[in-house]
Amino acid sequence: MVIQLKQDITEPQRAAISQELERAGYSFREVITSIACYWVAIGNNDMDIRSIGNLPGITDIHRVTDSYKLVSGMWKLTPSSIPLGNGISIGGGNFTIMAGPCSIENDAQVSEVAGFLKSNGVFVMRGGVFKPRSSPYSFRGVGIEGLRYFHSICKLNGVLVVSEVMEPDQIEAMYPYIDIFQVGTRNAQNFSLLDALGRVDKPVMIKRGFSGTIEELLYSAEYVFSGGNEKIILCERGIRTFEKAYRNTLDLNAVPILKQKSHLPVVVDPSHGTGIRNLVEPMSLAAVMAGADGVIVEIHREPEKAYSDGIQSLCYSEAEQLFDRLRQTVSLKSTFGLS
Amino acid sequence: MVIQLKQDITEPQRAAISQELERAGYSFREVITSIACYWVAIGNNDMDIRSIGNLPGITDIHRVTDSYKLVSGMWKLTPSSIPLGNGISIGGGNFTIMAGPCSIENDAQVSEVAGFLKSNGVFVMRGGVFKPRSSPYSFRGVGIEGLRYFHSICKLNGVLVVSEVMEPDQIEAMYPYIDIFQVGTRNAQNFSLLDALGRVDKPVMIKRGFSGTIEELLYSAEYVFSGGNEKIILCERGIRTFEKAYRNTLDLNAVPILKQKSHLPVVVDPSHGTGIRNLVEPMSLAAVMAGADGVIVEIHREPEKAYSDGIQSLCYSEAEQLFDRLRQTVSLKSTFGLS
Amino acid sequence: MVIQLKQDITEPQRAAISQELERAGYSFREVITSIACYWVAIGNNDMDIRSIGNLPGITDIHRVTDSYKLVSGMWKLTPSSIPLGNGISIGGGNFTIMAGPCSIENDAQVSEVAGFLKSNGVFVMRGGVFKPRSSPYSFRGVGIEGLRYFHSICKLNGVLVVSEVMEPDQIEAMYPYIDIFQVGTRNAQNFSLLDALGRVDKPVMIKRGFSGTIEELLYSAEYVFSGGNEKIILCERGIRTFEKAYRNTLDLNAVPILKQKSHLPVVVDPSHGTGIRNLVEPMSLAAVMAGADGVIVEIHREPEKAYSDGIQSLCYSEAEQLFDRLRQTVSLKSTFGLS
Amino acid sequence: MVIQLKQDITEPQRAAISQELERAGYSFREVITSIACYWVAIGNNDMDIRSIGNLPGITDIHRVTDSYKLVSGMWKLTPSSIPLGNGISIGGGNFTIMAGPCSIENDAQVSEVAGFLKSNGVFVMRGGVFKPRSSPYSFRGVGIEGLRYFHSICKLNGVLVVSEVMEPDQIEAMYPYIDIFQVGTRNAQNFSLLDALGRVDKPVMIKRGFSGTIEELLYSAEYVFSGGNEKIILCERGIRTFEKAYRNTLDLNAVPILKQKSHLPVVVDPSHGTGIRNLVEPMSLAAVMAGADGVIVEIHREPEKAYSDGIQSLCYSEAEQLFDRLRQTVSLKSTFGLS
Repeated sequence: MVIQLKQDITEPQRAAISQELERAGYSFREVITSIACYWVAIGNNDMDIRSIGNLPGITDIHRVTDSYKLVSGMWKLTPSSIPLGNGISIGGGNFTIMAGPCSIENDAQVSEVAGFLKSNGVFVMRGGVFKPRSSPYSFRGVGIEGLRYFHSICKLNGVLVVSEVMEPDQIEAMYPYIDIFQVGTRNAQNFSLLDALGRVDKPVMIKRGFSGTIEELLYSAEYVFSGGNEKIILCERGIRTFEKAYRNTLDLNAVPILKQKSHLPVVVDPSHGTGIRNLVEPMSLAAVMAGADGVIVEIHREPEKAYSDGIQSLCYSEAEQLFDRLRQTVSLKSTFGLS
Repeated sequence: MVIQLKQDITEPQRAAISQELERAGYSFREVITSIACYWVAIGNNDMDIRSIGNLPGITDIHRVTDSYKLVSGMWKLTPSSIPLGNGISIGGGNFTIMAGPCSIENDAQVSEVAGFLKSNGVFVMRGGVFKPRSSPYSFRGVGIEGLRYFHSICKLNGVLVVSEVMEPDQIEAMYPYIDIFQVGTRNAQNFSLLDALGRVDKPVMIKRGFSGTIEELLYSAEYVFSGGNEKIILCERGIRTFEKAYRNTLDLNAVPILKQKSHLPVVVDPSHGTGIRNLVEPMSLAAVMAGADGVIVEIHREPEKAYSDGIQSLCYSEAEQLFDRLRQTVSLKSTFGLS
Repeated sequence: MVIQLKQDITEPQRAAISQELERAGYSFREVITSIACYWVAIGNNDMDIRSIGNLPGITDIHRVTDSYKLVSGMWKLTPSSIPLGNGISIGGGNFTIMAGPCSIENDAQVSEVAGFLKSNGVFVMRGGVFKPRSSPYSFRGVGIEGLRYFHSICKLNGVLVVSEVMEPDQIEAMYPYIDIFQVGTRNAQNFSLLDALGRVDKPVMIKRGFSGTIEELLYSAEYVFSGGNEKIILCERGIRTFEKAYRNTLDLNAVPILKQKSHLPVVVDPSHGTGIRNLVEPMSLAAVMAGADGVIVEIHREPEKAYSDGIQSLCYSEAEQLFDRLRQTVSLKSTFGLS
Repeated sequence: MVIQLKQDITEPQRAAISQELERAGYSFREVITSIACYWVAIGNNDMDIRSIGNLPGITDIHRVTDSYKLVSGMWKLTPSSIPLGNGISIGGGNFTIMAGPCSIENDAQVSEVAGFLKSNGVFVMRGGVFKPRSSPYSFRGVGIEGLRYFHSICKLNGVLVVSEVMEPDQIEAMYPYIDIFQVGTRNAQNFSLLDALGRVDKPVMIKRGFSGTIEELLYSAEYVFSGGNEKIILCERGIRTFEKAYRNTLDLNAVPILKQKSHLPVVVDPSHGTGIRNLVEPMSLAAVMAGADGVIVEIHREPEKAYSDGIQSLCYSEAEQLFDRLRQTVSLKSTFGLS
């Protein structure tokens, strides 16, 4: 059961609700976000929620039989819209394009890409500064220094920054220079990191583990929400299967199922999700029809010269065509309503 | 290397080509279909194909480095259009909707569904008469008797029949009553069956094995083509992964990759591919954007009463909405050209 | 529920049992094998099986809640021992080694291998004569002619023959020359073939589909048993996973779980199961400890010259070491009893 | 290429080697562990390593074409033996049993289990104090306070402690109370954590990611080694597949392949690896024959009352039988030599 308390709830009112929960054999955990105060109540007994729902001090109450609670669609029936800053929101009917290189390389590159995005009406730039690499001998990113110029150049262009955070210790240093914290696929169940991001008031985009189930992704989101941060974006980025024709198997089924099970927005990463440049456009357009709230796409001026993942990056002209077709597809999809 | 011979090639011309291939250390296999005569030549040596290509009697010749040959996009650069009968074709720019129940139950059901399809402008009806069932104690289908009324009722409505064939011995009996032979996922590598279907002059729709790779699906198609039948349709129907939220993981990545590797049309089965009714519409629309040439969808007047697979069937009103949205999406997609 | 009838049951006794089942709302299917007559009764009602069990004419009766019935360990608590012919049995405490080349190549090869096996106390030889090959252009085997000399040479050496059957039509022609019919991984759910093998009185070894679940393998065995043939051997041969370091992932967990769920013997194929020569010995020995009733191993005088699968074949000296270590391991394992 | 420097190498000798590497177009990274000083040199050019190998100051030099270097079997041909403390080593011919509950619950439990282990000749106890749980609402462990009594009670019994570390920040606090740091499957690619453990001088046991490849596990080990810690143990603990009969699919193929590719010891966790109590013994014994250097097994006095994972824990009498059979199997296996 999830209970949202009124802002002006009094102490005696809180005590009354607490007593009623206790009487029914329920324990609860208080979750305070920048938006509201929730009680997540867990118990095995069947109870009539009206006995609590009618008490003063409560904005809303719902029985949530899912084992994840705050992120469940059973708690919140309408899709959430997450403000990213700069007047841009994701979810709730908006479709958001995020694009940029796999790795930030230098300030000239950032200037160029940010300018390209701005002139194409794209207002979120992706780019890794700490790169999780399987091998310790691979390029590991430009680091916090790179994030600084990445952010300042983007800000000049009115473009927001999304970049991966790899450990709790990096949060504080990255905080001033980032608009959306990205949790990478290898950290999708790094519970220490998720806990720490629950204490931050900036949006968090959680990538599905490459062998993570839908349920595990929702649990990871629940970690962040129950830690106090409800600005969460889910991201499908491809899973591991037996198929060798693509680097990952982008699982678009995840989009409609997540939209049905949760109120959180869902974006798709077709670049990592397939690992093949000429699958990016068809799978991006397909993602729109599957119900995605956005895509995050790798682009590079000269893909074959990228520090990492060039093989899956679009060049600028391909990106422009994609942006245009995405918008036409979104426009048609919006006439269908929610599927 | 694939060589297409001229219809009016002379014996001396054939002998000259054969000699040249032998000289180059190539062996070849002659494949005669209802459309043309091909020589599939295999050898390890590097040779200048012009030495053969300039010989008289040859319509076309291409080096094909893929290990599948006749189905490869390296042999035939333009997408194939497969005539289904009744003036309908699949592939080559057309989008084909096929729909119907999982299992044929009785003639009243067939009449009703066929009428519904006709009135909605859908001209291919699916329906199993031999059902491959994991358990020997499950309903195994109405059999050849059922196929007879299935076909005759459809014919009255101008609707074509697609149904699964499970063994070579069934082909002859089914032949008069079927328009498209379907090879099920469990038989995707039943090479005896594929061989036998190569000797038939009706279209064959091959479903991808639920753990079959893209390459294996193309090899299975090569069995049919090299057996003499080039009317082949590929079908993505979901693969097995670790995910338990859906019955299968519909792999839409297969669509653009198959379209790039082969000239054959590709259809998608979102019903078996997901096993969840309310995923069928979003994944069908996504399939269009991924580049599919058609969909094959399960519908039932009262899904909850179906003999099999009701949980993934659409009711009529859902189907009508789907058909309408599919057509709008196809219409937009057609303005994008091939991706 | 499974009921085994007495050999000398009378018609009135049969009628009484049938009536009692009908009264309880159960339907049943009679299964007659070379060993006994069974009634497999299926119904949804809870009933006291003693009301039937006490009727005359019944040898044994058990409630079987598994959805597979005759192959279930709930029906038969003691492990089955399958006579292979020649005084050799598999299961029931025996450990059986089967070995031979992937493909039969010629009679000289058969003579040599059969002699090698005999001199090493191995009395079952494997060898494909019909090869299921992904590509239609690969070597497809020496065919029925090869099977004839394969069998006659083996017979001279007192060695039994196990070989793959690919379609119902081959059964009759193969019958005189084969001791164990093998159903390959690609045909693990070819229900027409399984049905047909239910009507044969020779042992059938069913390989698990490379993405087949444990339950599906048991269902496939149920097809053969319920068709009338209870001489069934199950075979684990590797599944498909994301791992690329081996061709397949041999799943030894299947051994103890199958032994717990079923009374049928279970053998392991470490050659196809791993696809890597130097994994064959450790995984074979591991299979013994996991509880396997036998192994089926590829050997070749000169693995690098084999027509197929040389990379996973053992040479003779490796095979001799394996046989010796297998026997020592079996000897230790037998002191542990069933785990 | 990996170069091990002599302990008493002089500065001019270092300079000479460095110059020669530079001349050949190689860059290198110096790795200093508690045992030796290594240079890991990476370059694309073919070079005759004797031009460097003959220089003074070098103990050993090997070309390593694997992309992991220090953990590769190409660098060190003989299996490594890792001292755990207390006179116990793992690898290099020893077989090590580790056992204990999934979660540490209280000091009475620790006393009892430690006593049980000691009396059975088992000298490493497992037990989680920080539990990575999919849901934020599950029990998360007794924490650092619990680790303190866990360690002090074990020390009294002469038993070593292995427990999971979840983030770099925990290392310092855990350090005095732990003998082996365990990296859990969800952190197998938490590169920040692996980096930090490279700076510690205690053994690290890295569990394979539940969808991690063999290569990725070796890369993760390379992170720790190249960070300065060569006391590394690899652990196979089950992967995710389509199979639903067990919680995970324990992949014993990983054992011989890791032993062939690396010099590091490999242990197996059959408890998490299968998730089923009565699969633990057969798979443990199988692990020995596959070549494992140890097992890590869950035990509990009353499995059905465990705080977590009771369903896969052995009770004491089952554990005693397992220990006994493991020792007999190890004894037989040791006569076979390395396979």
